Amino acid sequence: MTRLSSWRIAHGHSLALSSFDPSAKPFSQGDKATDKARIAELSEQIGAVQERLYATRQRSLLIVLQGMDTSGKDGTVRSVFSGINPQGVRVVSFKAPTQEEREHDFLWRVHRHVPAAGEIAIFNRSHYEDVLITRVKGWIDDAEAERRLAHIRHFEQLLADRGTAILKCFLHISKDEQKARLEERLADPAKHWKFDPADLVERKAWDDYQCVYAEALSATSEAHAPWYVVPANSKTHRNLMVAELVLEALQGMKLEPPQANPALAGMKVA
Amino acid sequence: MTRLSSWRIAHGHSLALSSFDPSAKPFSQGDKATDKARIAELSEQIGAVQERLYATRQRSLLIVLQGMDTSGKDGTVRSVFSGINPQGVRVVSFKAPTQEEREHDFLWRVHRHVPAAGEIAIFNRSHYEDVLITRVKGWIDDAEAERRLAHIRHFEQLLADRGTAILKCFLHISKDEQKARLEERLADPAKHWKFDPADLVERKAWDDYQCVYAEALSATSEAHAPWYVVPANSKTHRNLMVAELVLEALQGMKLEPPQANPALAGMKVA
Repeated sequence: MTRLSSWRIAHGHSLALSSFDPSAKPFSQGDKATDKARIAELSEQIGAVQERLYATRQRSLLIVLQGMDTSGKDGTVRSVFSGINPQGVRVVSFKAPTQEEREHDFLWRVHRHVPAAGEIAIFNRSHYEDVLITRVKGWIDDAEAERRLAHIRHFEQLLADRGTAILKCFLHISKDEQKARLEERLADPAKHWKFDPADLVERKAWDDYQCVYAEALSATSEAHAPWYVVPANSKTHRNLMVAELVLEALQGMKLEPPQANPALAGMKVA
Repeated sequence: MTRLSSWRIAHGHSLALSSFDPSAKPFSQGDKATDKARIAELSEQIGAVQERLYATRQRSLLIVLQGMDTSGKDGTVRSVFSGINPQGVRVVSFKAPTQEEREHDFLWRVHRHVPAAGEIAIFNRSHYEDVLITRVKGWIDDAEAERRLAHIRHFEQLLADRGTAILKCFLHISKDEQKARLEERLADPAKHWKFDPADLVERKAWDDYQCVYAEALSATSEAHAPWYVVPANSKTHRNLMVAELVLEALQGMKLEPPQANPALAGMKVA
């Protein structure tokens, strides 16, 4: 699908995120109401394919959501995945690592949460944090970043070899849009719980983040684990595009319907 | 609510499940369409309270679903919990224990999956299997069953002391209804994946299961962790009653809206 491919990151090509417009709406079909109707339709289709995924238990799907603060990771989960059967779907939110997690390699805490056959797992933040904030803060040097990016490639290949499809979405907002969203949270006491003053510190390093994001995306976008830039200044468009990508990833598995079991022929229930 | 209390198991009173009609519809408001509309309404209300639970991160909710094969544990999850934000809800299905799990006490594998503050966890089967199938098969004697029931009471008290509300639902179907559902699965190749010939073996022990269920429910139904018998021959009624119970449990927490944070007063976004 060409609409998709122009937002897919090519492996190994250096890239500038500024060349992607965060206000673009490549998947919009017109007004917001039309787009919301399409999201509802996609959500239903995702639900139907998920049932098949769950019933056949051969393949699995890992969805990675990354983006700057307020880019809408939580909102995407709520919009795209509400409406599907929570049995067979797991959302895993990765926070700052605990003491025990820091005493292991950086993929240890992630590995235990990857989806089993039949499952969808959604990572709200992920192992990519370990090549993002760590670089911006200077906690690791370039050589260590290179090693980690290679480990990520090998790790994702391991998952793909076991039948896991991997879809990675970078929710792309502008610095102005982040300002508006942070101000909205400050202005509304009911949204204070979403506001962390540390977000203002990260915001000061906006350009550095854009830079390390670009490097990480380029170094780890592979045919079996592509990165997509999702223009996310419009929440509706962001949800719409992620839903399209998820359905595409599920349909790409070409799952057969559950098979009849010949051993059950002629069996009677007493 | 009196409708609820007459289906709640009283602690320590001996009981016969045969005194509960699996075809009853105490929560029905008339025809199926009306009941389905009510389920949709409840699902929306559950979603709204769940947001508050998630935002305030003080309390948590554990929902235990038990019942004979085909009683509709999976279907209940799909119907009642599709439509709410999967972030903050986890469904855990307990299968036959693994070797590692068998090498620990019976609550070990369960404990790690209980809900954190702000979360809802749904157990599809649970630690109760360890006082059900184990007794029917004669793997444990009465003294061990007594010990385990006491451990379950203490364990659930531990969770309640930390702020976890516990709701336990026994999905109650008749032996004839199970026959019809098993035959339906056999007749439809697309449902073969749900059919396990071992279910026919368990079915032969139907009366034994009803008996050990009655003992377990009576021994572990407490004010902070009540068991409800949910008449489940009608799938719509089953979903409706579980949704009413879940909303009641959430509302019983009397969650306050998220609080304003005074530390954010006057803060500016640069």
